[in-house]
Amino acid sequence: MNVLWIYAHPEERSLSGSLKDEGIAALREAGHEVRLRDLYAMKWNPVVDAADFGQEPDRRLLVGEASKRANTEGTLSADIRAEHEHIRWADTIVTQFPLWWLGPPAILKGWFDRVLLNGFAFGVKDEYGHTLRYGDGGLAGKRAMVITTIGAREASFGPRGIHGALDDVLFPLQHGLFWYTGMAALPPVAIYGADRACEQDFAREALRLRRRLLAMPEERPIAFRHQDGGDYDENLVLRPHVAPGQAGLGVHYA
Amino acid sequence: MNVLWIYAHPEERSLSGSLKDEGIAALREAGHEVRLRDLYAMKWNPVVDAADFGQEPDRRLLVGEASKRANTEGTLSADIRAEHEHIRWADTIVTQFPLWWLGPPAILKGWFDRVLLNGFAFGVKDEYGHTLRYGDGGLAGKRAMVITTIGAREASFGPRGIHGALDDVLFPLQHGLFWYTGMAALPPVAIYGADRACEQDFAREALRLRRRLLAMPEERPIAFRHQDGGDYDENLVLRPHVAPGQAGLGVHYA
Repeated sequence: MNVLWIYAHPEERSLSGSLKDEGIAALREAGHEVRLRDLYAMKWNPVVDAADFGQEPDRRLLVGEASKRANTEGTLSADIRAEHEHIRWADTIVTQFPLWWLGPPAILKGWFDRVLLNGFAFGVKDEYGHTLRYGDGGLAGKRAMVITTIGAREASFGPRGIHGALDDVLFPLQHGLFWYTGMAALPPVAIYGADRACEQDFAREALRLRRRLLAMPEERPIAFRHQDGGDYDENLVLRPHVAPGQAGLGVHYA
Repeated sequence: MNVLWIYAHPEERSLSGSLKDEGIAALREAGHEVRLRDLYAMKWNPVVDAADFGQEPDRRLLVGEASKRANTEGTLSADIRAEHEHIRWADTIVTQFPLWWLGPPAILKGWFDRVLLNGFAFGVKDEYGHTLRYGDGGLAGKRAMVITTIGAREASFGPRGIHGALDDVLFPLQHGLFWYTGMAALPPVAIYGADRACEQDFAREALRLRRRLLAMPEERPIAFRHQDGGDYDENLVLRPHVAPGQAGLGVHYA
């Protein structure tokens, strides 16, 4: 695999930092290529603005249009273009982060916001002018996985846990971003009780992470439905005969 | 009301910018106090790091501990303390943002990450040492609402829409942040088809927004379950007799 490892944690001497080192070492020992994007170390700028698109400061910024145009005309800022080059190289994208407010830290959210642009990751059309999404798109053919450290205990992220089931909490990322851009989402690796982890916990989690990473090439992705597989109508609503009478995020799994 | 309006959009001359002006004007005309936090105009720093907590650069950063300590000892950075002052003043918090990757732009995610800290917004205990969450906490008694502009059409965010129902997509924010910190979540205001809005659309949406804002004092919040209302066990899992046999985010509504 060519693995692009996007890492967002402010402290290198953390459980997250140690797991990142373990995971990358495991992949390299097995002969895989890994490129690390350590967003804190890079001092990544997470804030979308007009400068991203090389447009005149006086011109009204329409983010979708501006990003599509800048992508076509090659006027995207250099830091965004560098990330695009890494993404093109990768067949597998790992995003590793502590779960803050049930999502990625702002520095990672802003990597998604600034890098995964209209015309590059999504907003791509086929030869008939049909927009590709959910199972197809600018990043089709790649695989992506979440590795996340969570302060709370596992039960509270279970099917009836108070925070919501982890797959539901990660649905906007795994379905709405990975799958939306065409990437197959592999089941996440979650490390619970991260604030209380001791050496023994670390050893166990490091081993579990190594195994999950080395199994990635054979792992089955989450079975989200394809936009163009016949299950959704022209308004992107599930057709009545599919999961009839049901609602909730669960209906989007095949 | 004392309304703290947190606004995150990179372009003042946008649908979002115009709706923000309309909404604030409507509230002020009705005699309410409004403080605007325009995160882009403020050049808000969204990235959590050791400097937030005034701790020595060589010391290992444990975010939860450091924020709790800095909050107690008054060593939080000045920009965070200023936001705390605004939050204390407010009885109502409006967060307005374009929906990017099914969540807030990084600059707003980083306002949540940096401002809503352990010991201030959550991690608060009662006199028996019991941690308050979900319906109680550091921001108990306040109300909060999302106003969001969305490029897609409404049907695709409906109960069987491909992106997930809007309430499910916003669950991490409305339940996992607003409600978690003790704030009652008012139903969101969503403006769909935002990229294609014409003058007529704006007039309609501006009127709808005004009505929703002026009705806030009487509006019923989303009926999430209380952590300590008896529905959850000591592991924060819904007890078997509550919504028996069911799972999914819907079980957390009373």
